[in-house]
Amino acid sequence: MNTKRPLDVLNRAKGKRVYVVLKNGREVVGELQALDIHINLWLENAEINHEDKTVKVGSILIRGDSIVYVSTTP
Amino acid sequence: MNTKRPLDVLNRAKGKRVYVVLKNGREVVGELQALDIHINLWLENAEINHEDKTVKVGSILIRGDSIVYVSTTP
Amino acid sequence: MNTKRPLDVLNRAKGKRVYVVLKNGREVVGELQALDIHINLWLENAEINHEDKTVKVGSILIRGDSIVYVSTTP
Amino acid sequence: MNTKRPLDVLNRAKGKRVYVVLKNGREVVGELQALDIHINLWLENAEINHEDKTVKVGSILIRGDSIVYVSTTP
Amino acid sequence: MNTKRPLDVLNRAKGKRVYVVLKNGREVVGELQALDIHINLWLENAEINHEDKTVKVGSILIRGDSIVYVSTTP
Amino acid sequence: MNTKRPLDVLNRAKGKRVYVVLKNGREVVGELQALDIHINLWLENAEINHEDKTVKVGSILIRGDSIVYVSTTP
Amino acid sequence: MNTKRPLDVLNRAKGKRVYVVLKNGREVVGELQALDIHINLWLENAEINHEDKTVKVGSILIRGDSIVYVSTTP
Repeated sequence: MNTKRPLDVLNRAKGKRVYVVLKNGREVVGELQALDIHINLWLENAEINHEDKTVKVGSILIRGDSIVYVSTTP
Repeated sequence: MNTKRPLDVLNRAKGKRVYVVLKNGREVVGELQALDIHINLWLENAEINHEDKTVKVGSILIRGDSIVYVSTTP
Repeated sequence: MNTKRPLDVLNRAKGKRVYVVLKNGREVVGELQALDIHINLWLENAEINHEDKTVKVGSILIRGDSIVYVSTTP
Repeated sequence: MNTKRPLDVLNRAKGKRVYVVLKNGREVVGELQALDIHINLWLENAEINHEDKTVKVGSILIRGDSIVYVSTTP
Repeated sequence: MNTKRPLDVLNRAKGKRVYVVLKNGREVVGELQALDIHINLWLENAEINHEDKTVKVGSILIRGDSIVYVSTTP
Repeated sequence: MNTKRPLDVLNRAKGKRVYVVLKNGREVVGELQALDIHINLWLENAEINHEDKTVKVGSILIRGDSIVYVSTTP
Repeated sequence: MNTKRPLDVLNRAKGKRVYVVLKNGREVVGELQALDIHINLWLENAEINHEDKTVKVGSILIRGDSIVYVSTTP
Protein backbone atom coordinates (compact mmCIF):
# COMPACT_ATOMS: atom_id res chain seq x y z
CA MET A 1 0.00 0.00 0.00
CA ASN A 2 2.95 2.33 0.62
CA THR A 3 3.76 2.53 -3.05
CA LYS A 4 0.43 4.13 -4.08
CA ARG A 5 0.75 7.70 -5.32
CA PRO A 6 -2.05 10.31 -5.42
CA LEU A 7 -1.94 10.72 -9.19
CA ASP A 8 -2.62 6.99 -9.64
CA VAL A 9 -6.31 7.75 -9.11
CA LEU A 10 -6.17 9.91 -12.25
CA ASN A 11 -3.96 7.59 -14.26
CA ARG A 12 -6.43 4.75 -13.85
CA ALA A 13 -9.23 7.08 -15.05
CA LYS A 14 -7.69 7.71 -18.46
CA GLY A 15 -10.27 7.28 -21.20
CA LYS A 16 -13.13 7.82 -18.72
CA ARG A 17 -15.16 10.90 -17.82
CA VAL A 18 -13.92 12.94 -14.85
CA TYR A 19 -15.42 15.86 -12.96
CA VAL A 20 -13.13 18.83 -12.26
CA VAL A 21 -13.83 21.66 -9.79
CA LEU A 22 -11.93 24.86 -10.62
CA LYS A 23 -10.76 27.60 -8.25
CA ASN A 24 -12.99 30.12 -10.09
CA GLY A 25 -16.03 28.07 -9.04
CA ARG A 26 -16.76 26.54 -12.42
CA GLU A 27 -17.02 22.82 -13.00
CA VAL A 28 -15.77 20.85 -16.01
CA VAL A 29 -16.76 17.35 -17.11
CA GLY A 30 -14.83 15.55 -19.84
CA GLU A 31 -13.01 12.42 -20.94
CA LEU A 32 -9.49 12.33 -19.48
CA GLN A 33 -6.81 11.92 -22.16
CA ALA A 34 -3.58 12.82 -20.36
CA LEU A 35 -2.17 14.45 -17.23
CA ASP A 36 1.22 15.48 -15.84
CA ILE A 37 2.77 16.10 -12.42
CA HIS A 38 1.39 19.67 -12.34
CA ILE A 39 -2.08 18.10 -12.79
CA ASN A 40 -2.43 19.84 -16.14
CA LEU A 41 -5.31 17.90 -17.73
CA TRP A 42 -6.26 17.24 -21.34
CA LEU A 43 -9.98 16.47 -21.64
CA GLU A 44 -12.05 15.56 -24.71
CA ASN A 45 -15.78 16.23 -25.20
CA ALA A 46 -15.66 18.62 -22.27
CA GLU A 47 -18.52 20.70 -20.86
CA ILE A 48 -18.33 23.65 -18.47
CA ASN A 49 -21.05 24.08 -15.86
CA HIS A 50 -21.55 27.52 -14.36
CA GLU A 51 -24.66 28.86 -12.65
CA ASP A 52 -26.96 26.21 -14.12
CA LYS A 53 -25.71 26.74 -17.67
CA THR A 54 -23.74 24.11 -19.59
CA VAL A 55 -21.39 25.04 -22.44
CA LYS A 56 -19.74 22.45 -24.70
CA VAL A 57 -16.03 23.28 -25.07
CA GLY A 58 -14.75 20.17 -26.87
CA SER A 59 -11.01 19.55 -26.48
CA ILE A 60 -9.42 21.46 -23.62
CA LEU A 61 -6.23 21.84 -21.66
CA ILE A 62 -6.88 22.80 -18.01
CA ARG A 63 -3.94 24.44 -16.23
CA GLY A 64 -3.22 22.41 -13.10
CA ASP A 65 -2.99 25.35 -10.74
CA SER A 66 -6.62 26.26 -11.57
CA ILE A 67 -7.88 22.98 -10.10
CA VAL A 68 -9.24 22.32 -6.60
CA TYR A 69 -10.05 18.64 -7.03
CA VAL A 70 -10.87 16.00 -9.63
CA SER A 71 -13.46 13.29 -9.07
CA THR A 72 -13.17 10.11 -11.09
CA THR A 73 -16.50 8.65 -9.99
CA PRO A 74 -19.12 8.59 -12.76
CA MET B 1 11.80 13.11 18.49
CA ASN B 2 13.90 15.14 16.06
CA THR B 3 13.32 12.73 13.24
CA LYS B 4 9.54 13.22 13.09
CA ARG B 5 8.32 14.90 9.91
CA PRO B 6 5.00 16.75 9.48
CA LEU B 7 3.71 14.41 6.79
CA ASP B 8 4.09 11.45 9.15
CA VAL B 9 0.74 12.40 10.66
CA LEU B 10 -0.84 11.76 7.26
CA ASN B 11 1.19 8.67 6.43
CA ARG B 12 -0.02 6.94 9.59
CA ALA B 13 -3.63 7.81 8.62
CA LYS B 14 -3.58 5.87 5.36
CA GLY B 15 -6.67 3.70 5.05
CA LYS B 16 -8.55 5.86 7.58
CA ARG B 17 -11.01 8.73 7.14
CA VAL B 18 -9.52 12.22 7.18
CA TYR B 19 -11.12 15.67 7.24
CA VAL B 20 -9.76 18.25 4.78
CA VAL B 21 -10.43 22.02 4.89
CA LEU B 22 -9.98 23.71 1.50
CA LYS B 23 -8.97 27.31 0.76
CA ASN B 24 -12.34 27.87 -0.99
CA GLY B 25 -14.08 27.17 2.34
CA ARG B 26 -15.41 23.72 1.47
CA GLU B 27 -14.69 20.65 3.56
CA VAL B 28 -13.98 17.13 2.32
CA VAL B 29 -14.15 13.88 4.26
CA GLY B 30 -12.80 10.64 2.79
CA GLU B 31 -10.59 7.60 3.24
CA LEU B 32 -6.93 8.50 2.62
CA GLN B 33 -5.30 6.31 -0.03
CA ALA B 34 -2.10 8.15 -0.90
CA LEU B 35 -0.29 11.50 -0.56
CA ASP B 36 2.88 13.13 -1.85
CA ILE B 37 5.22 15.94 -0.77
CA HIS B 38 2.92 18.57 -2.33
CA ILE B 39 0.16 17.20 -0.07
CA ASN B 40 -1.80 16.12 -3.13
CA LEU B 41 -4.30 13.65 -1.63
CA TRP B 42 -6.16 10.68 -3.08
CA LEU B 43 -9.34 9.97 -1.13
CA GLU B 44 -11.94 7.22 -1.57
CA ASN B 45 -15.63 7.41 -0.62
CA ALA B 46 -15.27 11.16 -0.32
CA GLU B 47 -17.98 13.67 0.56
CA ILE B 48 -17.92 17.47 0.14
CA ASN B 49 -19.62 19.63 2.75
CA HIS B 50 -20.62 23.14 1.75
CA GLU B 51 -23.22 25.35 3.41
CA ASP B 52 -24.98 22.46 5.18
CA LYS B 53 -25.20 20.35 2.04
CA THR B 54 -23.27 17.10 1.58
CA VAL B 55 -22.40 15.74 -1.87
CA LYS B 56 -20.89 12.29 -2.44
CA VAL B 57 -17.96 12.56 -4.86
CA GLY B 58 -16.47 9.06 -4.61
CA SER B 59 -12.81 8.83 -5.66
CA ILE B 60 -11.01 12.17 -5.76
CA LEU B 61 -7.63 13.76 -6.17
CA ILE B 62 -7.30 17.00 -4.18
CA ARG B 63 -4.56 19.37 -5.40
CA GLY B 64 -2.27 20.09 -2.45
CA ASP B 65 -2.17 23.85 -2.92
CA SER B 66 -5.97 23.97 -2.37
CA ILE B 67 -5.61 22.66 1.19
CA VAL B 68 -5.47 24.65 4.44
CA TYR B 69 -5.22 21.72 6.84
CA VAL B 70 -5.99 18.04 7.21
CA SER B 71 -7.31 16.52 10.43
CA THR B 72 -6.75 12.81 11.00
CA THR B 73 -8.91 12.58 14.12
CA PRO B 74 -12.16 10.66 13.56
CA MET C 1 -2.01 5.79 -24.79
CA ASN C 2 0.29 6.17 -21.79
CA THR C 3 2.68 8.34 -23.71
CA LYS C 4 0.18 11.15 -24.34
CA ARG C 5 0.96 14.40 -22.55
CA PRO C 6 -1.54 17.18 -21.72
CA LEU C 7 0.25 19.82 -23.80
CA ASP C 8 -0.10 17.63 -26.90
CA VAL C 9 -3.63 18.96 -27.26
CA LEU C 10 -2.15 22.44 -27.71
CA ASN C 11 0.77 21.37 -29.87
CA ARG C 12 -1.57 19.82 -32.41
CA ALA C 13 -3.57 23.09 -32.49
CA LYS C 14 -0.67 25.22 -33.71
CA GLY C 15 -1.73 27.41 -36.59
CA LYS C 16 -5.42 27.10 -35.60
CA ARG C 17 -7.68 29.37 -33.54
CA VAL C 18 -7.93 28.59 -29.83
CA TYR C 19 -10.18 29.96 -27.09
CA VAL C 20 -8.49 30.96 -23.82
CA VAL C 21 -10.28 31.66 -20.50
CA LEU C 22 -8.26 33.89 -18.18
CA LYS C 23 -8.31 34.02 -14.36
CA ASN C 24 -9.51 37.65 -14.53
CA GLY C 25 -12.67 36.45 -16.29
CA ARG C 26 -11.79 37.70 -19.77
CA GLU C 27 -11.69 35.47 -22.82
CA VAL C 28 -9.20 35.56 -25.67
CA VAL C 29 -9.52 34.03 -29.14
CA GLY C 30 -6.55 33.88 -31.49
CA GLU C 31 -4.39 31.77 -33.78
CA LEU C 32 -1.88 29.72 -31.73
CA GLN C 33 1.72 30.30 -32.82
CA ALA C 34 3.77 28.83 -29.98
CA LEU C 35 3.61 27.61 -26.37
CA ASP C 36 5.99 26.44 -23.65
CA ILE C 37 5.83 24.29 -20.52
CA HIS C 38 4.50 27.22 -18.45
CA ILE C 39 1.63 27.43 -20.99
CA ASN C 40 2.79 30.88 -22.02
CA LEU C 41 0.97 31.35 -25.34
CA TRP C 42 1.75 33.43 -28.42
CA LEU C 43 -1.42 34.19 -30.38
CA GLU C 44 -1.87 36.09 -33.66
CA ASN C 45 -5.00 38.01 -34.75
CA ALA C 46 -6.25 37.85 -31.16
CA GLU C 47 -9.45 39.32 -29.78
CA ILE C 48 -10.41 39.89 -26.13
CA ASN C 49 -14.02 39.38 -25.09
CA HIS C 50 -15.19 41.07 -21.90
CA GLU C 51 -18.76 41.91 -20.92
CA ASP C 52 -20.11 41.62 -24.48
CA LYS C 53 -17.41 43.85 -25.94
CA THR C 54 -14.74 42.56 -28.33
CA VAL C 55 -11.38 44.30 -28.72
CA LYS C 56 -8.86 43.36 -31.40
CA VAL C 57 -5.38 43.07 -29.85
CA GLY C 58 -3.40 41.57 -32.73
CA SER C 59 -0.21 39.74 -31.68
CA ILE C 60 -0.11 38.85 -27.98
CA LEU C 61 1.85 36.92 -25.41
CA ILE C 62 -0.39 35.53 -22.63
CA ARG C 63 1.42 34.70 -19.39
CA GLY C 64 0.68 31.05 -18.56
CA ASP C 65 -0.22 31.64 -14.93
CA SER C 66 -3.12 33.89 -16.04
CA ILE C 67 -4.84 31.00 -17.81
CA VAL C 68 -7.62 28.73 -16.49
CA TYR C 69 -8.09 26.62 -19.58
CA VAL C 70 -7.61 26.59 -23.35
CA SER C 71 -10.14 25.08 -25.75
CA THR C 72 -8.91 23.99 -29.17
CA THR C 73 -12.36 23.25 -30.59
CA PRO C 74 -13.47 25.74 -33.26
CA MET D 1 24.44 35.22 16.71
CA ASN D 2 24.89 34.97 12.94
CA THR D 3 24.17 31.27 12.92
CA LYS D 4 20.59 31.55 14.23
CA ARG D 5 17.95 30.56 11.70
CA PRO D 6 14.28 31.65 11.76
CA LEU D 7 12.93 28.10 12.08
CA ASP D 8 14.96 27.62 15.27
CA VAL D 9 12.18 29.40 17.15
CA LEU D 10 9.84 26.59 16.09
CA ASN D 11 12.32 23.77 16.59
CA ARG D 12 12.81 24.75 20.22
CA ALA D 13 8.99 24.76 20.69
CA LYS D 14 8.55 21.09 19.82
CA GLY D 15 6.35 19.36 22.36
CA LYS D 16 4.85 22.69 23.47
CA ARG D 17 1.65 24.48 22.49
CA VAL D 18 1.92 26.99 19.64
CA TYR D 19 -0.54 29.52 18.26
CA VAL D 20 -0.92 29.65 14.46
CA VAL D 21 -2.62 32.45 12.46
CA LEU D 22 -3.86 31.30 9.05
CA LYS D 23 -4.30 33.34 5.87
CA ASN D 24 -8.05 32.58 5.93
CA GLY D 25 -8.31 34.42 9.26
CA ARG D 26 -8.72 31.36 11.45
CA GLU D 27 -6.45 30.60 14.40
CA VAL D 28 -5.16 27.20 15.49
CA VAL D 29 -3.69 26.21 18.85
CA GLY D 30 -1.98 22.85 19.32
CA GLU D 31 1.06 20.95 20.53
CA LEU D 32 3.85 21.12 17.93
CA GLN D 33 5.10 17.67 16.87
CA ALA D 34 7.10 18.34 13.73
CA LEU D 35 7.82 20.96 11.05
CA ASP D 36 9.72 21.18 7.77
CA ILE D 37 11.32 23.92 5.65
CA HIS D 38 7.95 24.75 4.03
CA ILE D 39 6.65 25.39 7.58
CA ASN D 40 4.22 22.50 7.19
CA LEU D 41 3.21 21.82 10.81
CA TRP D 42 1.99 18.69 12.60
CA LEU D 43 0.01 19.60 15.71
CA GLU D 44 -1.61 17.34 18.32
CA ASN D 45 -4.67 18.21 20.47
CA ALA D 46 -5.37 21.10 18.13
CA GLU D 47 -8.27 23.55 18.34
CA ILE D 48 -9.50 25.98 15.66
CA ASN D 49 -10.81 29.39 16.73
CA HIS D 50 -13.11 31.22 14.34
CA GLU D 51 -15.53 34.00 15.19
CA ASP D 52 -15.64 33.18 18.92
CA LYS D 53 -16.25 29.48 18.33
CA THR D 54 -13.69 26.80 19.21
CA VAL D 55 -13.65 23.41 17.47
CA LYS D 56 -11.45 20.52 18.61
CA VAL D 57 -9.71 18.98 15.58
CA GLY D 58 -7.23 16.62 17.27
CA SER D 59 -4.24 15.67 15.10
CA ILE D 60 -3.69 17.96 12.13
CA LEU D 61 -1.29 18.79 9.34
CA ILE D 62 -1.32 22.47 8.44
CA ARG D 63 -0.01 23.30 4.95
CA GLY D 64 2.81 25.83 5.34
CA ASP D 65 1.60 28.20 2.65
CA SER D 66 -1.64 28.73 4.63
CA ILE D 67 0.26 30.26 7.55
CA VAL D 68 0.86 33.95 8.30
CA TYR D 69 2.77 33.51 11.54
CA VAL D 70 3.31 31.15 14.45
CA SER D 71 3.67 32.32 18.05
CA THR D 72 5.48 30.04 20.47
CA THR D 73 4.66 32.08 23.57
CA PRO D 74 2.16 30.36 25.86
CA MET E 1 7.28 25.98 -37.13
CA ASN E 2 8.01 23.73 -34.15
CA THR E 3 10.96 25.80 -33.10
CA LYS E 4 8.95 28.99 -32.41
CA ARG E 5 8.78 29.96 -28.75
CA PRO E 6 6.14 32.20 -27.13
CA LEU E 7 8.62 34.84 -26.02
CA ASP E 8 9.74 35.32 -29.63
CA VAL E 9 6.74 37.58 -30.12
CA LEU E 10 8.21 39.91 -27.49
CA ASN E 11 11.80 39.60 -28.64
CA ARG E 12 10.88 40.79 -32.10
CA ALA E 13 9.07 43.79 -30.55
CA LYS E 14 12.17 45.22 -28.88
CA GLY E 15 12.48 48.91 -29.54
CA LYS E 16 8.76 49.19 -30.35
CA ARG E 17 5.77 50.21 -28.24
CA VAL E 18 3.90 47.40 -26.49
CA TYR E 19 0.64 47.35 -24.54
CA VAL E 20 0.66 45.50 -21.19
CA VAL E 21 -2.43 44.46 -19.19
CA LEU E 22 -1.71 44.00 -15.49
CA LYS E 23 -3.47 41.72 -12.98
CA ASN E 24 -4.53 44.79 -10.96
CA GLY E 25 -6.53 45.99 -13.97
CA ARG E 26 -4.22 48.80 -15.01
CA GLU E 27 -2.72 49.08 -18.49
CA VAL E 28 0.79 50.18 -19.41
CA VAL E 29 2.07 51.36 -22.78
CA GLY E 30 5.78 51.82 -23.41
CA GLU E 31 8.77 51.09 -25.61
CA LEU E 32 10.13 47.59 -24.90
CA GLN E 33 13.83 47.58 -24.00
CA ALA E 34 14.40 44.13 -22.52
CA LEU E 35 12.66 41.04 -21.15
CA ASP E 36 13.60 37.79 -19.42
CA ILE E 37 12.08 34.33 -18.99
CA HIS E 38 9.92 35.52 -16.07
CA ILE E 39 8.48 38.12 -18.50
CA ASN E 40 9.93 40.91 -16.37
CA LEU E 41 9.78 43.88 -18.75
CA TRP E 42 11.84 47.06 -19.01
CA LEU E 43 9.87 49.80 -20.78
CA GLU E 44 10.91 53.35 -21.69
CA ASN E 45 8.57 56.37 -22.10
CA ALA E 46 5.86 54.37 -20.33
CA GLU E 47 2.34 55.53 -19.48
CA ILE E 48 -0.15 53.95 -17.08
CA ASN E 49 -3.85 54.02 -17.97
CA HIS E 50 -6.34 53.58 -15.14
CA GLU E 51 -9.98 54.65 -15.13
CA ASP E 52 -9.60 57.08 -18.04
CA LYS E 53 -6.56 58.78 -16.52
CA THR E 54 -3.09 58.55 -18.07
CA VAL E 55 0.07 59.02 -15.97
CA LYS E 56 3.54 59.27 -17.50
CA VAL E 57 5.95 57.03 -15.57
CA GLY E 58 9.04 57.16 -17.80
CA SER E 59 11.44 54.23 -17.33
CA ILE E 60 9.89 51.23 -15.57
CA LEU E 61 10.51 47.65 -14.63
CA ILE E 62 7.30 45.58 -14.57
CA ARG E 63 7.46 42.41 -12.49
CA GLY E 64 6.49 39.49 -14.75
CA ASP E 65 4.05 37.91 -12.33
CA SER E 66 1.92 41.10 -12.43
CA ILE E 67 1.22 40.65 -16.13
CA VAL E 68 -1.83 39.05 -17.79
CA TYR E 69 -0.82 39.61 -21.39
CA VAL E 70 1.30 41.80 -23.65
CA SER E 71 0.14 42.99 -27.07
CA THR E 72 2.80 43.97 -29.59
CA THR E 73 0.37 45.38 -32.15
CA PRO E 74 0.53 49.18 -32.48
CA MET F 1 28.45 49.67 -3.89
CA ASN F 2 27.66 46.88 -6.36
CA THR F 3 28.14 44.19 -3.75
CA LYS F 4 25.29 45.34 -1.47
CA ARG F 5 22.39 42.92 -1.27
CA PRO F 6 18.81 43.79 -0.26
CA LEU F 7 18.78 41.49 2.75
CA ASP F 8 21.80 43.33 4.18
CA VAL F 9 19.40 45.95 5.50
CA LEU F 10 17.81 43.24 7.64
CA ASN F 11 21.05 41.53 8.62
CA ARG F 12 22.39 44.73 10.10
CA ALA F 13 19.13 45.13 12.10
CA LYS F 14 19.56 41.88 14.04
CA GLY F 15 18.95 42.45 17.72
CA LYS F 16 16.98 45.64 17.01
CA ARG F 17 13.25 46.28 16.70
CA VAL F 18 11.78 46.12 13.21
CA TYR F 19 8.36 47.00 11.83
CA VAL F 20 6.71 44.46 9.50
CA VAL F 21 3.70 45.10 7.25
CA LEU F 22 1.81 41.91 6.36
CA LYS F 23 -0.26 41.17 3.25
CA ASN F 24 -3.37 40.73 5.45
CA GLY F 25 -3.04 44.36 6.52
CA ARG F 26 -1.75 43.70 10.04
CA GLU F 27 1.48 45.17 11.36
CA VAL F 28 4.02 43.47 13.60
CA VAL F 29 6.75 45.07 15.70
CA GLY F 30 9.45 42.97 17.34
CA GLU F 31 13.14 42.40 17.94
CA LEU F 32 14.71 40.67 14.91
CA GLN F 33 16.53 37.45 15.85
CA ALA F 34 17.08 35.71 12.53
CA LEU F 35 16.04 35.71 8.86
CA ASP F 36 16.59 33.56 5.77
CA ILE F 37 16.48 34.03 1.99
CA HIS F 38 12.68 33.54 1.96
CA ILE F 39 12.49 36.50 4.40
CA ASN F 40 11.07 34.19 7.05
CA LEU F 41 11.59 36.23 10.24
CA TRP F 42 12.03 35.23 13.88
CA LEU F 43 11.01 38.09 16.18
CA GLU F 44 11.12 38.31 19.99
CA ASN F 45 8.84 40.47 22.20
CA ALA F 46 6.56 40.93 19.21
CA GLU F 47 3.29 42.87 19.10
CA ILE F 48 0.57 42.77 16.44
CA ASN F 49 -1.27 45.99 15.57
CA HIS F 50 -4.68 45.68 13.92
CA GLU F 51 -7.40 48.30 13.82
CA ASP F 52 -6.02 50.30 16.75
CA LYS F 53 -5.63 47.23 18.97
CA THR F 54 -2.23 45.89 20.06
CA VAL F 55 -1.74 42.25 21.04
CA LYS F 56 1.47 40.93 22.59
CA VAL F 57 2.49 37.68 20.85
CA GLY F 58 5.98 37.14 22.29
CA SER F 59 8.21 34.90 20.16
CA ILE F 60 7.02 34.48 16.58
CA LEU F 61 8.00 33.09 13.22
CA ILE F 62 6.55 35.11 10.34
CA ARG F 63 6.31 33.26 7.02
CA GLY F 64 8.18 35.30 4.42
CA ASP F 65 5.49 35.15 1.77
CA SER F 66 3.10 36.96 4.14
CA ILE F 67 5.29 40.06 4.20
CA VAL F 68 4.97 43.22 2.10
CA TYR F 69 7.88 45.14 3.58
CA VAL F 70 10.05 45.46 6.67
CA SER F 71 11.20 48.79 8.07
CA THR F 72 14.32 48.83 10.22
CA THR F 73 14.00 52.46 11.29
CA PRO F 74 13.08 52.89 14.96
CA MET G 1 20.84 45.57 -27.87
CA ASN G 2 20.18 41.87 -27.35
CA THR G 3 22.27 41.76 -24.23
CA LYS G 4 20.12 44.21 -22.24
CA ARG G 5 18.32 42.66 -19.28
CA PRO G 6 15.19 44.04 -17.58
CA LEU G 7 16.87 44.50 -14.21
CA ASP G 8 19.48 46.77 -15.81
CA VAL G 9 16.98 49.60 -15.54
CA LEU G 10 17.08 49.18 -11.76
CA ASN G 11 20.82 48.58 -11.52
CA ARG G 12 21.53 51.89 -13.20
CA ALA G 13 19.17 53.61 -10.72
CA LYS G 14 21.17 52.65 -7.64
CA GLY G 15 21.67 55.63 -5.37
CA LYS G 16 18.71 57.45 -6.93
CA ARG G 17 15.08 57.75 -5.86
CA VAL G 18 12.66 55.21 -7.32
CA TYR G 19 8.88 54.94 -7.21
CA VAL G 20 7.42 51.52 -6.36
CA VAL G 21 3.78 50.45 -6.83
CA LEU G 22 2.76 47.57 -4.55
CA LYS G 23 0.10 44.90 -5.15
CA ASN G 24 -1.80 46.16 -2.07
CA GLY G 25 -2.25 49.52 -3.81
CA ARG G 26 0.25 51.47 -1.74
CA GLU G 27 3.13 53.40 -3.27
CA VAL G 28 6.67 53.71 -1.93
CA VAL G 29 9.30 56.27 -2.82
CA GLY G 30 12.90 55.87 -1.66
CA GLU G 31 16.57 55.82 -2.59
CA LEU G 32 17.51 52.45 -4.13
CA GLN G 33 20.41 50.77 -2.33
CA ALA G 34 20.32 47.19 -3.60
CA LEU G 35 18.19 44.65 -5.46
CA ASP G 36 18.30 40.95 -6.33
CA ILE G 37 16.81 38.66 -8.97
CA HIS G 38 13.54 38.34 -6.98
CA ILE G 39 13.31 42.16 -7.19
CA ASN G 40 13.62 42.38 -3.42
CA LEU G 41 14.51 46.06 -2.91
CA TRP G 42 16.41 47.87 -0.17
CA LEU G 43 15.41 51.54 -0.05
CA GLU G 44 16.68 54.35 2.19
CA ASN G 45 14.72 57.46 3.26
CA ALA G 46 11.55 55.76 2.10
CA GLU G 47 8.01 57.12 2.28
CA ILE G 48 4.73 55.23 1.87
CA ASN G 49 1.82 56.95 0.14
CA HIS G 50 -1.67 55.63 0.82
CA GLU G 51 -4.94 57.48 0.35
CA ASP G 52 -3.34 60.94 0.31
CA LYS G 53 -1.32 60.28 3.48
CA THR G 54 2.48 60.02 3.48
CA VAL G 55 4.35 58.10 6.19
CA LYS G 56 8.13 58.19 6.54
CA VAL G 57 9.44 54.63 7.01
CA GLY G 58 13.19 55.19 6.70
CA SER G 59 15.18 52.07 5.76
CA ILE G 60 13.05 49.30 4.26
CA LEU G 61 13.24 45.94 2.56
CA ILE G 62 10.38 45.40 0.11
CA ARG G 63 9.64 41.77 -0.73
CA GLY G 64 9.83 41.39 -4.51
CA ASP G 65 6.59 39.46 -4.89
CA SER G 66 4.68 42.47 -3.44
CA ILE G 67 5.72 44.69 -6.33
CA VAL G 68 3.78 45.50 -9.51
CA TYR G 69 6.29 47.86 -11.08
CA VAL G 70 9.15 50.21 -10.28
CA SER G 71 9.63 53.56 -12.01
CA THR G 72 13.12 55.04 -12.06
CA THR G 73 12.09 58.39 -13.52
CA PRO G 74 12.31 61.28 -11.02
